[in-house]
Amino acid sequence: MATVYVTRQLHFSAAHRLHCDKLDPQTNIKIYGMCNNPRGHGHNYDLEVTVRGEPDPLTGMVIDLKELKEIVAREVIDQVDHRYLNEDVDFLRGVVPTAENLAVAFWRILQDKFPGAELYEIKLYETPRNMAVYRGE
Amino acid sequence: MATVYVTRQLHFSAAHRLHCDKLDPQTNIKIYGMCNNPRGHGHNYDLEVTVRGEPDPLTGMVIDLKELKEIVAREVIDQVDHRYLNEDVDFLRGVVPTAENLAVAFWRILQDKFPGAELYEIKLYETPRNMAVYRGE
Amino acid sequence: MATVYVTRQLHFSAAHRLHCDKLDPQTNIKIYGMCNNPRGHGHNYDLEVTVRGEPDPLTGMVIDLKELKEIVAREVIDQVDHRYLNEDVDFLRGVVPTAENLAVAFWRILQDKFPGAELYEIKLYETPRNMAVYRGE
Amino acid sequence: MATVYVTRQLHFSAAHRLHCDKLDPQTNIKIYGMCNNPRGHGHNYDLEVTVRGEPDPLTGMVIDLKELKEIVAREVIDQVDHRYLNEDVDFLRGVVPTAENLAVAFWRILQDKFPGAELYEIKLYETPRNMAVYRGE
Amino acid sequence: MATVYVTRQLHFSAAHRLHCDKLDPQTNIKIYGMCNNPRGHGHNYDLEVTVRGEPDPLTGMVIDLKELKEIVAREVIDQVDHRYLNEDVDFLRGVVPTAENLAVAFWRILQDKFPGAELYEIKLYETPRNMAVYRGE
Amino acid sequence: MATVYVTRQLHFSAAHRLHCDKLDPQTNIKIYGMCNNPRGHGHNYDLEVTVRGEPDPLTGMVIDLKELKEIVAREVIDQVDHRYLNEDVDFLRGVVPTAENLAVAFWRILQDKFPGAELYEIKLYETPRNMAVYRGE
Repeated sequence: MATVYVTRQLHFSAAHRLHCDKLDPQTNIKIYGMCNNPRGHGHNYDLEVTVRGEPDPLTGMVIDLKELKEIVAREVIDQVDHRYLNEDVDFLRGVVPTAENLAVAFWRILQDKFPGAELYEIKLYETPRNMAVYRGE
Repeated sequence: MATVYVTRQLHFSAAHRLHCDKLDPQTNIKIYGMCNNPRGHGHNYDLEVTVRGEPDPLTGMVIDLKELKEIVAREVIDQVDHRYLNEDVDFLRGVVPTAENLAVAFWRILQDKFPGAELYEIKLYETPRNMAVYRGE
Repeated sequence: MATVYVTRQLHFSAAHRLHCDKLDPQTNIKIYGMCNNPRGHGHNYDLEVTVRGEPDPLTGMVIDLKELKEIVAREVIDQVDHRYLNEDVDFLRGVVPTAENLAVAFWRILQDKFPGAELYEIKLYETPRNMAVYRGE
Repeated sequence: MATVYVTRQLHFSAAHRLHCDKLDPQTNIKIYGMCNNPRGHGHNYDLEVTVRGEPDPLTGMVIDLKELKEIVAREVIDQVDHRYLNEDVDFLRGVVPTAENLAVAFWRILQDKFPGAELYEIKLYETPRNMAVYRGE
Repeated sequence: MATVYVTRQLHFSAAHRLHCDKLDPQTNIKIYGMCNNPRGHGHNYDLEVTVRGEPDPLTGMVIDLKELKEIVAREVIDQVDHRYLNEDVDFLRGVVPTAENLAVAFWRILQDKFPGAELYEIKLYETPRNMAVYRGE
Repeated sequence: MATVYVTRQLHFSAAHRLHCDKLDPQTNIKIYGMCNNPRGHGHNYDLEVTVRGEPDPLTGMVIDLKELKEIVAREVIDQVDHRYLNEDVDFLRGVVPTAENLAVAFWRILQDKFPGAELYEIKLYETPRNMAVYRGE
């Protein structure tokens, strides 16, 4: 009996603007600085999805990584790739698209989607130097 | 006597939309696909600027790399970082912001800016998998 | 008193075929797809071995990283590098060489090999986009 | 008028064995060492294909990078990914699959496949530390 | 309610020598090998600082990543970048500058510096292949 | 007949100080800034050596990459790894160890060392963001 964690990395390119409608313009600029630019900016996001479970004694797999990839592609990547995250994505309506909020939003969508394996971690790189991790805690 | 090439990498995050005003909407969608999304998408761009020249016999430097970095930051990065390339950047007005066109535009700005060294190459990564190079040819 | 985790990355290149002898050919193809190709395929594997312990008050080291490297090289890398994992490696006989099974197999070999430090984690990248982690749970 | 080089990176995972049928077994071992292992080994190959041309004045593109990707995927990647290069690939019959020979073979296949753009370079990483480049010289 | 981990990567270049004054020269050479070279050697260090907390319901941020960056730059990077770690850094006096000891020293400096967020992890890459992690345990 | 370029990457870690004895202290500080720190600083250098030639019709190799690696290791890496470049390396006496000067010095050592292949390029990364290239021009 062994619990193994398997991770698949996918990527998407999107635009966003950090702006909170409940705050006035000056506060938004003070908090978000350049990230508050009215017409937005963008990133190549790297998304790493980790599930855990016991490898099947016959197949040696926790989950078919190709299936894991297809689920994440369908449920998340196809919704956010080449989109403006503030307006184009149904499940992000009303969410300030910080890396933190995106990681939590992706977790909620993917949480119950992997047959026979448990979602363990969403790691989202906004740039190679900035990332957020959510583990459902 | 030795000609040495020195390169500095910088990065910026920006939004853009691939769209040509001189083409009708259907042609734009046909040519650019998802990249024509009306509200844009974005990237973490990596920009590599290469100059060449003879190392100074005393200092051993073709150019002070810190100065090279500051020139590129001031002339290019500060204009495009956290911006929407289609509307926010003076020197890109009327330019479809493909990687190809950006590389040529950056070359034209930087061409005569390096005292004592010759601009050799602009390499622009739009993603880790897509890039354009311009050498002034 | 401080518990520190130290990691060393090594790499190896190997061929493998995902195939389970206990399953019929059609099931193997259905499960493993292209990875079931009869003559195999291969990868550049990156292996990260993490041990933990308290840094020695004199030397400042949890373990000599050079010694850690030599142990992993001798016990694992020398057995699997430039090999066909399905047939050439004694400790993998009868094991379907998925990343999950390899991580567990490497753990079992390395578990008691580090004097004065505790093995904490085996992380195995099959590609830069696919990886498996085993922590002895 | 500007000549721009555009590059797309793709990857594939394959097994190979370095072995020359025209040389006797001892010479093969002496030349290729571990790479001559009878059952082969493998790599994650990174392939960078560069074409050059003038950006179209309307679209700003030398070539549609999506089309470039699809051509390389169809002509090369689909033939070699998850294959044993010594036996499974028609266009590699009789070729010792060194990085050098693969780069030349890929060039010959891709040379006349890009409408409106000229193939400039094939760069093939066998590992992150070993690569071969062919420019049709 | 969600606990999210956010990480910022920074880097610095420094020289060091692994040498323990309390051990005689032969023992130092035996333990540290080439790293005991009297005039030192050096590295490009990558430092990843992770804090955790709940994203603010209005701003969507655990901590302003720009502020996190500035704190780490002021408290750590400005002290160690382009320095000889054995002699030039006040908070490292008497510390053998192994990656383990540096990670612990950086933790102690940063531990109480992040308003509204908890320091979770210091990860220090001495090279892309060697790293140490400290989590305050 | 085909000319192929093959590259091998190696790395070393070294300390250096940018300082020119022929310039006074103030000028040194003005030119080199932090890099003039009296006790030095250091880097993980990545060195890429490219040779070119025709692949041997039997072996498919321009040069045995293992031999290329061993030559560069013996002639360059073993001299500079874990050293203070300003004082510990015979062939760098009197040379200000900028990336430019190191690239030229390595070229001169390696120029005639590769049997049957021509040295084409020395590329030296001082950091992932700074590099120098010398091609013997």
